[in-house]
Amino acid sequence: MTAYQQLETRFRRLGALEEALGVLNWDSAVMMPPGGAATRAEQIATLSLVVHQQLAAPEIDDLLAAAENDAPALDLWQRANLREMRRRHAHAAALPADLAEAVARISAECETVWRRARPADDFAAVQPWLDKMLRLQREVADAKAAYLGVTPFEALLDRYEPGGSVATIDRLFGELSGFLPALIEAVIERQATMPPPAEPSGRFPVAAQRAAALRLMAALGFDFDHGRLDVSAHPFSSGAPDDVRITTRYDERDFSKALMGVLHETGHALYKRNLPARWRLQPVGAARGMAIHESQSLLVEMQVCRSLAFMQFAAPVLREVFGGDGPGWEAEALYRRATRVRRGLIRVDADEVTYPAHVILRYRLERAMLAGDLAVRDLPAAWAESMRDLLGIVPDNDRDGCLQDIHWFDGSWGYFPTYTLGAMIAAQLFETARAALGGLEAAIASGRFCPLLAWLRDKVHSQGSLMSTAELVENATGRPLGTQSFERHLRARYLDGRNEPV
Amino acid sequence: MTAYQQLETRFRRLGALEEALGVLNWDSAVMMPPGGAATRAEQIATLSLVVHQQLAAPEIDDLLAAAENDAPALDLWQRANLREMRRRHAHAAALPADLAEAVARISAECETVWRRARPADDFAAVQPWLDKMLRLQREVADAKAAYLGVTPFEALLDRYEPGGSVATIDRLFGELSGFLPALIEAVIERQATMPPPAEPSGRFPVAAQRAAALRLMAALGFDFDHGRLDVSAHPFSSGAPDDVRITTRYDERDFSKALMGVLHETGHALYKRNLPARWRLQPVGAARGMAIHESQSLLVEMQVCRSLAFMQFAAPVLREVFGGDGPGWEAEALYRRATRVRRGLIRVDADEVTYPAHVILRYRLERAMLAGDLAVRDLPAAWAESMRDLLGIVPDNDRDGCLQDIHWFDGSWGYFPTYTLGAMIAAQLFETARAALGGLEAAIASGRFCPLLAWLRDKVHSQGSLMSTAELVENATGRPLGTQSFERHLRARYLDGRNEPV
Repeated sequence: MTAYQQLETRFRRLGALEEALGVLNWDSAVMMPPGGAATRAEQIATLSLVVHQQLAAPEIDDLLAAAENDAPALDLWQRANLREMRRRHAHAAALPADLAEAVARISAECETVWRRARPADDFAAVQPWLDKMLRLQREVADAKAAYLGVTPFEALLDRYEPGGSVATIDRLFGELSGFLPALIEAVIERQATMPPPAEPSGRFPVAAQRAAALRLMAALGFDFDHGRLDVSAHPFSSGAPDDVRITTRYDERDFSKALMGVLHETGHALYKRNLPARWRLQPVGAARGMAIHESQSLLVEMQVCRSLAFMQFAAPVLREVFGGDGPGWEAEALYRRATRVRRGLIRVDADEVTYPAHVILRYRLERAMLAGDLAVRDLPAAWAESMRDLLGIVPDNDRDGCLQDIHWFDGSWGYFPTYTLGAMIAAQLFETARAALGGLEAAIASGRFCPLLAWLRDKVHSQGSLMSTAELVENATGRPLGTQSFERHLRARYLDGRNEPV
Repeated sequence: MTAYQQLETRFRRLGALEEALGVLNWDSAVMMPPGGAATRAEQIATLSLVVHQQLAAPEIDDLLAAAENDAPALDLWQRANLREMRRRHAHAAALPADLAEAVARISAECETVWRRARPADDFAAVQPWLDKMLRLQREVADAKAAYLGVTPFEALLDRYEPGGSVATIDRLFGELSGFLPALIEAVIERQATMPPPAEPSGRFPVAAQRAAALRLMAALGFDFDHGRLDVSAHPFSSGAPDDVRITTRYDERDFSKALMGVLHETGHALYKRNLPARWRLQPVGAARGMAIHESQSLLVEMQVCRSLAFMQFAAPVLREVFGGDGPGWEAEALYRRATRVRRGLIRVDADEVTYPAHVILRYRLERAMLAGDLAVRDLPAAWAESMRDLLGIVPDNDRDGCLQDIHWFDGSWGYFPTYTLGAMIAAQLFETARAALGGLEAAIASGRFCPLLAWLRDKVHSQGSLMSTAELVENATGRPLGTQSFERHLRARYLDGRNEPV
C-alpha cells in the first residue's frame, strides 16, 4: 500500500470512531436517563482520547510527508483529502497532551458551573472558571497558531471554519455594521405602521406539531430511511450521512418555534445526507465547515421557509394538521408573523435582520478577551456597552447578557462568526440559484423543492471539502463572498415589500 | 504506579469502550433508521477492533505477569480482578487476528443469510454458511482450548459462562432428563382435567401495556433515573449499571407476552444496576456470567412473577390500567394462564417445565457438531429425532426446527446451556431466600419486593465477579448447584397444586 492508501485506511477508522462519538453524544441529549451522565462522560472522554492519540500519532506525520512527496501521483480529490488529513493531524498534534486534557476538563467543569449560574443570574459564580478557560484557550490558540502559521484567533476559528481569515471577517462584518443599524431602524418603523398579522387560532398539541414537521421535512427532501426527528432540550443536528438525526423542542402555545427550528435543522440534514458518497468517512468527504453548514440551514429556513411562496405551500398543510381555520391561517398572515423584526436581547430568538448584531458583538468581545484587551471580570459591562452600540438596548441582568450562550463556557471559542458568514453565504447562494433555475418561487409555492435541492447538491453538498469555503462560494455563485446579496435580500423582503426580489 | 494499578487504568478504559459499544448496539436495535445499518456496522467493527487490540496487547501480558508475581500484596477483590483480567486477555490473545476477523465476518454474513432463510424455511440456503461457521468455531475452540487449558467446548462456553464445566453440565442435564419426561406428562394430564382459566376481556392498547409494565417495573425496584424501557423487534437487556436499558415488543391481542418479557428483563436489569459500584468498569465488577444473569431474570419472572402471590398484587394494577372486569382478571385466573404447560416446538414460547428439553436438545447437537459427530447437512434430521426423543413431537419444517434460533447463525456457540443453568440457580436461590426471609409470599402479594431485592443484592448482585459461578451459588445457598430445588419447585407448582412450596 502507498503512504496515501495507508492514510485512507487510518482516516476511515478515525471517521468511524468519530461517528461513534456522534452516536454517544446524540444519545446523551435525546435518550439517556439523567443518572447515566457520569458513565457516559467517561465513555466519551475515553473514546475521544483514542481518536486524539490515533490522529496525533507520529506515524501519521511520516505517512503525510511521504504522501505529500508523492502528491503528483494523486488525483484532485485525493490531493484535497491529503490536505484535509494534514489539517486534522495538525489540530491534534499541535496540542500537547496535558493541554488537551486540561481544556477538556475545564470545558466540562465550566459548562457545569454555567448551567447553574445562568438561571441564577450569577456571573460571579462562573467568573473564576471562565478566567481559567480564557487562559487555556489563549494557550491553545498560541500553540495552534505556531503550528498552523496563522494568527491565534484564526487558529481557534480554523477548527470550525477551516481557512477562515480575520481580515475577511473584519471586512464583511464592517460592511454589515455600516448598513444594518439604519436598515433595522427603517424596518421596525415600517412594520410599526402596519396592523399586526392575525394570530392562528386553536391548540397546537405536540403530536400535531410533530406531524406537521414530518410532512414539511419530507416535502423538502428529508430521507426518513436515513434519518430521524426527536426531542431534546436544545435543538441540534447530528449523525452520519447515512443516519442523519435532528431534534427540536415543542411549545404547545406556539407551533412556529418548533416548526422553524425543524426546517432549519432540515437544512443541515440535507447537506449531511448529500455529502459525496464516494468519500464517506474520509476527511474530504466531510462538510466544508460550520459557515457552509449554517448557510444550508439558513438557506432552507430563512431564504426558503420564511418566504411568502413557502407559506402558500405550507398554509393548507398546517390548516389540515392543526384543524386551523380563520385569517391567522392564511399564507400572508403566516408569512408576516415569520418575518417580524424586533430589537431583542437574546441571540437565539433574533430575526434575520438583527441577528448579525448579536454575532458581531460576540466576535468583538471574544477577540478582545483573547488579545488580552478585555478581562473576564469586565465582560458584563463590555457586553452592555456593545449592545447599546449595536442594537440600542441594554440587558438589565447577565442571564439575558453574557450568560445567555453556552459557547464560551463549553470551550467553543472562535465559533460565533460562522453564524453570520452562513447567513451571507445563504443569501448569495439563493440569489444565484434563483437566477439559474427560474420559476423558483412558483416551484416552492407548489411544494416542488427538487430543482433547488438538486442545485444545492450539485454546487455545495456533493463538493464535501474539495475546495476551501471561499473557493466553494466563488465556484457556486461566480463571485467572492460579499454582503451585497444579503443586503438585497433584507431590503427586498423587509423594506421594498417584495417577497421575492429578482 | 504498580503493574496492577496500570492494569486497572487500562481495563477501566476498556470497560468504558465496551460500554460505548453497548450504546451503539442498543441504538441499532431500538433507534437506528434502516438505512444506517452499514455505517453502524463499520462503527461497531472499528471500535471492536480497538478493544480487541488493546486487550490482546503484549504489554497487557507483561503487566499481568508482573502483577501476578506481586499478588500477595493485593486484597481479595484485587486478586479476583487480576484473575478476570487474565481471563479477558486470554480470550483476546488466544485468537490470531485473521481468525478473529474471519469469525466476525462469517457471523455477520451468516446471520444475514439466516434472516432471509428462516421465514422462507430454506435450510439449504444457509447450510454453506453454517458449514463455514462451524469450521471457524472449531478453529476458535481449538485455539482457545490450548490457551486456556480446557476442552474445546468449554473454551467456547467460557466466553458466556466463565469456568463452566462439561462434566457438571452433563451431570445436571442428565438428572433433568431423568425426571422431566414423566413430570411433563403428569403436569399436562393434570391440567387437562381442569377447566380452562377465564380469559381477561377487553382491549390491550400499547400505551396501557406500557403503563402496566412501568408500574410493575417500579414496584420491583427498577430505577428510572438510571434506566429506560423501549421497543425492539427482539426483547433484550443492555446498557451500563448506571444506565440500564431493557426492551420489549407489544402484541395488542395478548398483554401477557410483553408483560412477562418486561419482568424477565427487569430481573437482568436489577442485577446489572446493583453490581458493585466500587468496581465500576473493572472486570471484577462485571456480571459473573450468563448463567447467573439468566438466574436473575428467571428468578424474577418464573419464581416471583408467575406465582399466585404476585398475581394477587398485580391483578388490581392490571384491572386499573386496562379497565379490566370479570373473572379473567382475577389473580387465580391470571396465575393459571401464566403457568400453563404445553409441548411446543418453539423454545422462546416454552413454559418453564418444557424449556429444559429445548436447551438439552441444542446442547447435544451443538456438542456433536463441534466434535465432528454431526454434519451440518444432517442437522434437520438430528433435530427432528431429538425433539421426538425429548418432547415427543416433531416439527414439519425447519423454520420451527433448527432455523428458529439466531445463536448458531450469529456465532453464539456455547451459549445455550446457560438458560437452563440459570433456571436451576434461580430455583435454588429462591428456595434459600424464602427460607431465610420468611413471609416472602405475603410480602410479594402485597407488593413489597424490598426484602427479596436486598437479599439478592447482598448474595448475588454486589458480588460481581468476585467468585466463580459455582462458588457464588454455594456461598449464597449453602450447597453446590443441583437439580433438587428446581424439581421441588416444579412439583410443588405444577403437580402438588401448592402455589408456594415451603
